Amino acid sequence: MDIIEAKKIYLKVRKKLKAYEYLTWLASWDAETESPEGTVEYRSNQMEIITREIYDIESDSEYVNSIDLLYKNREDLDREFSREILLKHKELMIIKKIPKNEYIQHQVLLGKSFHIWNKAKINNDFTDFKPILKKIVDYQRNFVKYLETKNLSGYDILLDLYEEGYTQKEYDKFFSAVKEKLLPFVKSKINSPNQENIYFNSQSFDISKQKEFSEYLLDVFSYDRKHGLLKTSAHPFTSGVTSVDTRITTRYDKKNLISSIFSTIHELGHAIYEMQNHKKYDQTFLHGGTSLGIHESQSRFYENMIGKSRAFWEVHYKKLKEIFIPQFDNINLDEFMKIVNKTKASLIRVDADELTYVLHIMIRYDLEKQLINGNLEVEDLPTAWNEKTKEYLGITPMDLKTGVLQDIHWSYGSFGYFPTYALGSAYSAQIYSSMNKEISIIDCIKNNEIFKINEWLKNKIHKYGRTKTPKEIIKLATGEDFDPNYYINYLKKKYE
Amino acid sequence: MDIIEAKKIYLKVRKKLKAYEYLTWLASWDAETESPEGTVEYRSNQMEIITREIYDIESDSEYVNSIDLLYKNREDLDREFSREILLKHKELMIIKKIPKNEYIQHQVLLGKSFHIWNKAKINNDFTDFKPILKKIVDYQRNFVKYLETKNLSGYDILLDLYEEGYTQKEYDKFFSAVKEKLLPFVKSKINSPNQENIYFNSQSFDISKQKEFSEYLLDVFSYDRKHGLLKTSAHPFTSGVTSVDTRITTRYDKKNLISSIFSTIHELGHAIYEMQNHKKYDQTFLHGGTSLGIHESQSRFYENMIGKSRAFWEVHYKKLKEIFIPQFDNINLDEFMKIVNKTKASLIRVDADELTYVLHIMIRYDLEKQLINGNLEVEDLPTAWNEKTKEYLGITPMDLKTGVLQDIHWSYGSFGYFPTYALGSAYSAQIYSSMNKEISIIDCIKNNEIFKINEWLKNKIHKYGRTKTPKEIIKLATGEDFDPNYYINYLKKKYE
Repeated sequence: MDIIEAKKIYLKVRKKLKAYEYLTWLASWDAETESPEGTVEYRSNQMEIITREIYDIESDSEYVNSIDLLYKNREDLDREFSREILLKHKELMIIKKIPKNEYIQHQVLLGKSFHIWNKAKINNDFTDFKPILKKIVDYQRNFVKYLETKNLSGYDILLDLYEEGYTQKEYDKFFSAVKEKLLPFVKSKINSPNQENIYFNSQSFDISKQKEFSEYLLDVFSYDRKHGLLKTSAHPFTSGVTSVDTRITTRYDKKNLISSIFSTIHELGHAIYEMQNHKKYDQTFLHGGTSLGIHESQSRFYENMIGKSRAFWEVHYKKLKEIFIPQFDNINLDEFMKIVNKTKASLIRVDADELTYVLHIMIRYDLEKQLINGNLEVEDLPTAWNEKTKEYLGITPMDLKTGVLQDIHWSYGSFGYFPTYALGSAYSAQIYSSMNKEISIIDCIKNNEIFKINEWLKNKIHKYGRTKTPKEIIKLATGEDFDPNYYINYLKKKYE
Repeated sequence: MDIIEAKKIYLKVRKKLKAYEYLTWLASWDAETESPEGTVEYRSNQMEIITREIYDIESDSEYVNSIDLLYKNREDLDREFSREILLKHKELMIIKKIPKNEYIQHQVLLGKSFHIWNKAKINNDFTDFKPILKKIVDYQRNFVKYLETKNLSGYDILLDLYEEGYTQKEYDKFFSAVKEKLLPFVKSKINSPNQENIYFNSQSFDISKQKEFSEYLLDVFSYDRKHGLLKTSAHPFTSGVTSVDTRITTRYDKKNLISSIFSTIHELGHAIYEMQNHKKYDQTFLHGGTSLGIHESQSRFYENMIGKSRAFWEVHYKKLKEIFIPQFDNINLDEFMKIVNKTKASLIRVDADELTYVLHIMIRYDLEKQLINGNLEVEDLPTAWNEKTKEYLGITPMDLKTGVLQDIHWSYGSFGYFPTYALGSAYSAQIYSSMNKEISIIDCIKNNEIFKINEWLKNKIHKYGRTKTPKEIIKLATGEDFDPNYYINYLKKKYE
């Protein structure tokens, strides 16, 4: 096989895989948004068959050999194609280096573990989940050994999977800065007197009106409805496999209007990133966000930098008042901004405010690092969790479901994923500073011209898809390497 | 290959095909209900690739040979499996007997013809569609020649495809009876004075209230929401590939409340049929309705026999009044029943009332028969259409879009399909008569116990899936062969 032949094989199989990717994406979109509850078993049986079909295509030796050959000769390929081959080769290594039996047994385990975790959370009991989590952690410990290279080992392997080029070295530096410069500040703030608005908290907000406001937000952010739509789901998410069709969901709760507003804006950030990928990547594996951290930086930028700014509500508060008339008649803009930007130590990560969020991530990072590197065992996890929470947030979980059992991630074997959430917020502050040197962000927001912000992000970040590493993207967009001080200073200034 | 081996191969491939069927079903459900408009091209490219994958699986010689062998030895198979093989073999014959080139060229033509028909209809101009329709008709004329057997030829081939065992002989007998016994009656009725309710026609009905009433209807008919859902689409339809997940759509128009109500009930009939198929057919090709006519008999039964009965509205009119308060305050039940059951000669089939509907079908049947058998050419079709409309309905289309261009079916090559619509209505009257001997239908409706009607239909029709022919089903359900007099007498009695 020569390079020309290898490329031909690769492109042919890629075309097929993209078609399967599209179909399985639609099936999961359906499952997560509207599929009736009695269909789970039938669907999972069909999906198992299709997954096996895809596995057969992906593990076909001709295809695998073509990637190997192209990888070895990647100097001779054009830059973007070479990048695609690098990414595919990395995926291939996982399949190749993990013994098939271990891999399959683990997949089977993960197929059951969600339900066991979910039951454990509901029953507030670690007993049944503990042996499962032990197996999952053991697999991760073996996984990193199988994938060990000269440059990467242990927890770093997992960190690099989600955020290419980021290891404990980078994260330790980041979190040390947070601990040193931000933590004392946060502690002083979250102990300040009660900021709750009792009148607002007592309100019930009509779901159809919340929907109307979310649809309004789509237009405010210039979301392209010809290439996406907004729907409802239990947990908000963005979903798409091409710039042509990137959909979002949000959730509605009568008692929690704030959640639907900022969930919608958050997902808009994710969606606009993928929609603004260059169209030439649609048929390749270069479509998408380059990393979880960069992805999260976009959603956080839209949610926090734009959506929680005073400028934003100076323009759009009247619409909110109008839709919910008369519920906001007694709340002026100042008071509404306090509701939006209140801060308080809390136990649940997904409900945490902008200021305390990073501390929730640090708890998980510290524990994961010890778990994967073998310095902490699963049986000691609940106690360790509570100690860390006390250390960073000054409070102690009352039970397991507001403590160690609150997140789904570990139950489906995701270790190294959490830190990207904090990194994304930190990136977004640095991006803000850089963008603001070229365009006045406040003016864009005040003139209802968010499309200008979209345009800047498109040219500096979005259009590249997966062709650049996260480090390259940050350098391109901000002219510097990642620097956590932007984030720390941003939060201090905002909450001072 | 022996029978045991053939069966093994067949079952293995069937399992795979069912998984593909499920995924492509979900993709078309998405396309027809919510897919954003800018996604058409990307989707159709992906679907083309998957369609080719499925074609490869279906035309694999080992699989084809297994069906051939099982077909030849079908006496040795159990009854249901033998029936499945018979149905699959029939499909296979089409692929085998049509020259591949002609088949593919025709598929390509059909890929474009919808748009050309749609444009022609909008522009009210036959010119551009005429050459396309000619090609489609030529293909159909060749198609029936390729598939000719000792027993079947010409238009009969097509009729039998949609309604197994029904040919011109059966349909001619049916439509002759209608012409002789019903047509004079219909003509006397549609010339009676204007039955329009001016107040009702001037109303605008809130879409969210229409949705609320449609959701209410789902429960009235005991539709199982754990295995289906109701959504919105331009043209109402029922969609599913398994009893586990059978979904319906309806349409809402502020000016046309009647349309949403009876579209919903109509689709409920289709859906309950497939949902009540025996579960053992889910993983086979025996799931579904046995024919278009039997399928339509169920939707018409629910729509006309139940939904348009006075007993039904004696129970449910109060709910309608309550939801739309005060819009029905001035309309009493008698007046509402007149609105529901008004009859009038009209030009558009899909808007036709219960009494005149069959005449619309007879126009199409007469013309199709002549077209396929070579006694009418496409260029003479518009004139022939107008003459037939005048003959049966006493009115003449003003233009092509209310005449020969009104229906989509011919543009996607469906000939022999229309007559099943009339047959379905006729079946439903015969089924009603038979059911009413065993349970009091009026009592079931009045006591809000439609589930008892569902149960009867399940045991006599639904549970069999595709294992029985339409003729067998009618015999099983009614104890007799099909007899159009039930239908004729039912309509005469109702509209007298």
